[in-house]
Amino acid sequence: MLMTSVLIAGFAGAMGQKAVDLVNGMADFQIVAAFSPQADRNDPERYNLNDDVQIFNDLAAIPDQAADVWIDFTVPSAVYENVKFALNHGMRPVVGTTGLTDEQEAELKALAKANHLGGLIAPNFGMSAVLLMKFAQEAAKYFPDVEVIEMHHADKKDAPSGTALSTAKMMAQNRQPHESNPDEVETLANVRGGDYQGIRIHSVRLPGYIAHEQVLFGGTGEALTIRQDSFDRGSFMSGVKVALEKVASLNELVVGLENIL
Amino acid sequence: MLMTSVLIAGFAGAMGQKAVDLVNGMADFQIVAAFSPQADRNDPERYNLNDDVQIFNDLAAIPDQAADVWIDFTVPSAVYENVKFALNHGMRPVVGTTGLTDEQEAELKALAKANHLGGLIAPNFGMSAVLLMKFAQEAAKYFPDVEVIEMHHADKKDAPSGTALSTAKMMAQNRQPHESNPDEVETLANVRGGDYQGIRIHSVRLPGYIAHEQVLFGGTGEALTIRQDSFDRGSFMSGVKVALEKVASLNELVVGLENIL
Amino acid sequence: MLMTSVLIAGFAGAMGQKAVDLVNGMADFQIVAAFSPQADRNDPERYNLNDDVQIFNDLAAIPDQAADVWIDFTVPSAVYENVKFALNHGMRPVVGTTGLTDEQEAELKALAKANHLGGLIAPNFGMSAVLLMKFAQEAAKYFPDVEVIEMHHADKKDAPSGTALSTAKMMAQNRQPHESNPDEVETLANVRGGDYQGIRIHSVRLPGYIAHEQVLFGGTGEALTIRQDSFDRGSFMSGVKVALEKVASLNELVVGLENIL
Amino acid sequence: MLMTSVLIAGFAGAMGQKAVDLVNGMADFQIVAAFSPQADRNDPERYNLNDDVQIFNDLAAIPDQAADVWIDFTVPSAVYENVKFALNHGMRPVVGTTGLTDEQEAELKALAKANHLGGLIAPNFGMSAVLLMKFAQEAAKYFPDVEVIEMHHADKKDAPSGTALSTAKMMAQNRQPHESNPDEVETLANVRGGDYQGIRIHSVRLPGYIAHEQVLFGGTGEALTIRQDSFDRGSFMSGVKVALEKVASLNELVVGLENIL
Repeated sequence: MLMTSVLIAGFAGAMGQKAVDLVNGMADFQIVAAFSPQADRNDPERYNLNDDVQIFNDLAAIPDQAADVWIDFTVPSAVYENVKFALNHGMRPVVGTTGLTDEQEAELKALAKANHLGGLIAPNFGMSAVLLMKFAQEAAKYFPDVEVIEMHHADKKDAPSGTALSTAKMMAQNRQPHESNPDEVETLANVRGGDYQGIRIHSVRLPGYIAHEQVLFGGTGEALTIRQDSFDRGSFMSGVKVALEKVASLNELVVGLENIL
Repeated sequence: MLMTSVLIAGFAGAMGQKAVDLVNGMADFQIVAAFSPQADRNDPERYNLNDDVQIFNDLAAIPDQAADVWIDFTVPSAVYENVKFALNHGMRPVVGTTGLTDEQEAELKALAKANHLGGLIAPNFGMSAVLLMKFAQEAAKYFPDVEVIEMHHADKKDAPSGTALSTAKMMAQNRQPHESNPDEVETLANVRGGDYQGIRIHSVRLPGYIAHEQVLFGGTGEALTIRQDSFDRGSFMSGVKVALEKVASLNELVVGLENIL
Repeated sequence: MLMTSVLIAGFAGAMGQKAVDLVNGMADFQIVAAFSPQADRNDPERYNLNDDVQIFNDLAAIPDQAADVWIDFTVPSAVYENVKFALNHGMRPVVGTTGLTDEQEAELKALAKANHLGGLIAPNFGMSAVLLMKFAQEAAKYFPDVEVIEMHHADKKDAPSGTALSTAKMMAQNRQPHESNPDEVETLANVRGGDYQGIRIHSVRLPGYIAHEQVLFGGTGEALTIRQDSFDRGSFMSGVKVALEKVASLNELVVGLENIL
Repeated sequence: MLMTSVLIAGFAGAMGQKAVDLVNGMADFQIVAAFSPQADRNDPERYNLNDDVQIFNDLAAIPDQAADVWIDFTVPSAVYENVKFALNHGMRPVVGTTGLTDEQEAELKALAKANHLGGLIAPNFGMSAVLLMKFAQEAAKYFPDVEVIEMHHADKKDAPSGTALSTAKMMAQNRQPHESNPDEVETLANVRGGDYQGIRIHSVRLPGYIAHEQVLFGGTGEALTIRQDSFDRGSFMSGVKVALEKVASLNELVVGLENIL
């Protein structure tokens, strides 16, 4: 197999450094360039990069086709320009940075098509969360009665979690809106949780917990439960690895890791 | 050990029949009498009773001290008169029938005291539920951040379950009222569930499920979860067995199985 | 939509009666015939069948194309002859009876092909178990480190359960055999469970439990768990319903409900 | 309330530093001294200590009654001498260091008694683990059929975990040794796990997992499950806090946090 060359944008940040470690450990991939506006260009070792990796502080300085793949773990304000740059210079993007609007995503997809480049934009690279959503969507065909419980640390500011709501939306595509128990009475207000087209969502907030989600399906005489636990954001790298292994075969810019599994 | 004699009131019903099976299987206990207004007095075998068990259709016909223990699985409209009768005729009551008012309970406790008889009234004889409540109450001293999730079949008419609310009330005695996450924002209404003094309660209703409850505690870097599953009301008999083994040593009429463990 | 006509073989047994109830409740399906060697041919109501359903005691008496679909919940000693009969007489089989050998299955598949008939043989019609196996097989591609815990009532005679072993075999097709923790030491013998190509299997046997299985996947910083609970064999009917809805579109005799989802 | 003064032995280590943070945050406790052979005596701020905290490098230099309480998070080779020193110089020990032999524990208990000092030695200060063991021991009285499943990261070298074995031993004190399912047959060797007096123990080892334990009880028609998750060793400090609040009222040197709850 040919070696695939990689440029990592945002390599100096926490997620970028995990991406560096990941690619350094993959036999068929090689980091050849790295981009970060503030990083020290003369000290690749400090970032766990080989001596011959070219570090760029300036987007405009990066040459055409500097790498086969552009991994992006930067910031919301930069991601759109970065990905546009990659697509205009012959690099396939694998993007974990959040913050792209629907319009920007559509524009980037069109640009990828025009340039005959595939790639992936994934708001969540955690394989356990991605598989949970995929399986839940499929199970909802057979088990239309379903509830979601997500559990996070007590200082999470919003509820429900984005992943829980995404899960409900994906399942809603495969079932008719309905209530499992339309005539019930709440003797303590709100115990039945939030309601998304008849899918009840419950958010638990407790110290100690990290990020967890359960989807509970019930049918006559049986139950199916899918659960994922994220203990550490290092978990995202398993999904980045899957994306790197598949990106060469993608013919378009795909949104959502679940769509390339 | 002396044999303890037992009278079973409501022996022809579903729970009464389970009680018959239970006592028949206990070496040191013996059914000597049985009471049910409608039962056939001449066919004890039909009810899985020995030939020499006396069947009564009429409360007034039961003699003084007909048995050491009066097990009651009858109906809400009869239980008060039944237990009063037992206490006035020298029998220690073990009561699984619901429907006694607070006033009636108080009156019966006074009557038991006057007659120097102990006994037990238990709305829930399921050992797993009783232990869950007991442990949860104790754990709340050390883990004041706690939520309750109860799960029942989809045709349960009310939410939350009585046991879930009892659990919250028992825990509330051992913690200060407070919210684990006071500043959070719900982006989907009610996902944070019901609120009992800062203990969030979540009710899940799905076909297939039977009767289940989880109590989730969180603290710095750790979590404790207690769960009980009731698959079948036959589970109540384990609690009745515990009550029978302890009733001789009780000096008062106790309410709540957890209080004699 | 045209009405699909159904013959139920083994209609008088426990599973057969559940199948009768199922089909009676499906708008586009109608029971037109029923087969059981011992049943009373003159009393369809006793079996919850309409008056005009033809009851047969003898296989040879059933006419060609007596129905579109042949549902089989009979006994291991009869199932092979039954399904051969169905295929030779223009009926598509949906088979929940166990006991077919690999050779018999192969022969029946060839016969179906020769007669241009599709159908389904499913040892397990429980949708939660079938989806668990399907999802576990797919997840094993991304999470090769996996263990299985199955939990059954205490009087189950063998361990592990057939479903747990099937799950392991299906996952083994999607991962390389390996141990997650090859150098470990057991200080209490056998705590690490059974070993199927590096997939550890644990069997729990406790009174109260019914039939449950969990598949636990672990990866860097995250975990994925799939669990199914069978509370009641009535659960099988959800899978039979799925099979009935799909059987008209099958071009071959498929083995395994998961293969038509 | 009077302020309680505290000396922290091993304050420069990871656990010692967590203890420093804990005590700094407790209104009624004050760190007055700290002991570590290697620490820099002239830079208390570096260790998050107030300027007036006395740092000692040498056990012999610590004066009599330097503090009310001696917290010990040192090393197995030092803990015995440390605790003996504390008891001989009027300080109540709260010990999280492991490595004391049964003989050393007995000797220290005698010394505490002779000096009229209470204290606590706790191999596990995680409140969730301690409560799990305590509750499991009590539940075993009512549910003698029980199994343990513990789950740890894949590089744990031994199985089962110490806590799982301790849990089994504590439960064994409250039940008769017996097998739940004596006649079963294993069709895959060892799936029924390890056996401690009929309590089956199962060890799961997977990447991503941290340290978790479940105790599963089963009875007729019901189940009770107690689970604890340790996500982070910072969790130990909740137990140290409980110990500090109770140590003044202890009349002896107690072993095991569960024994002072």
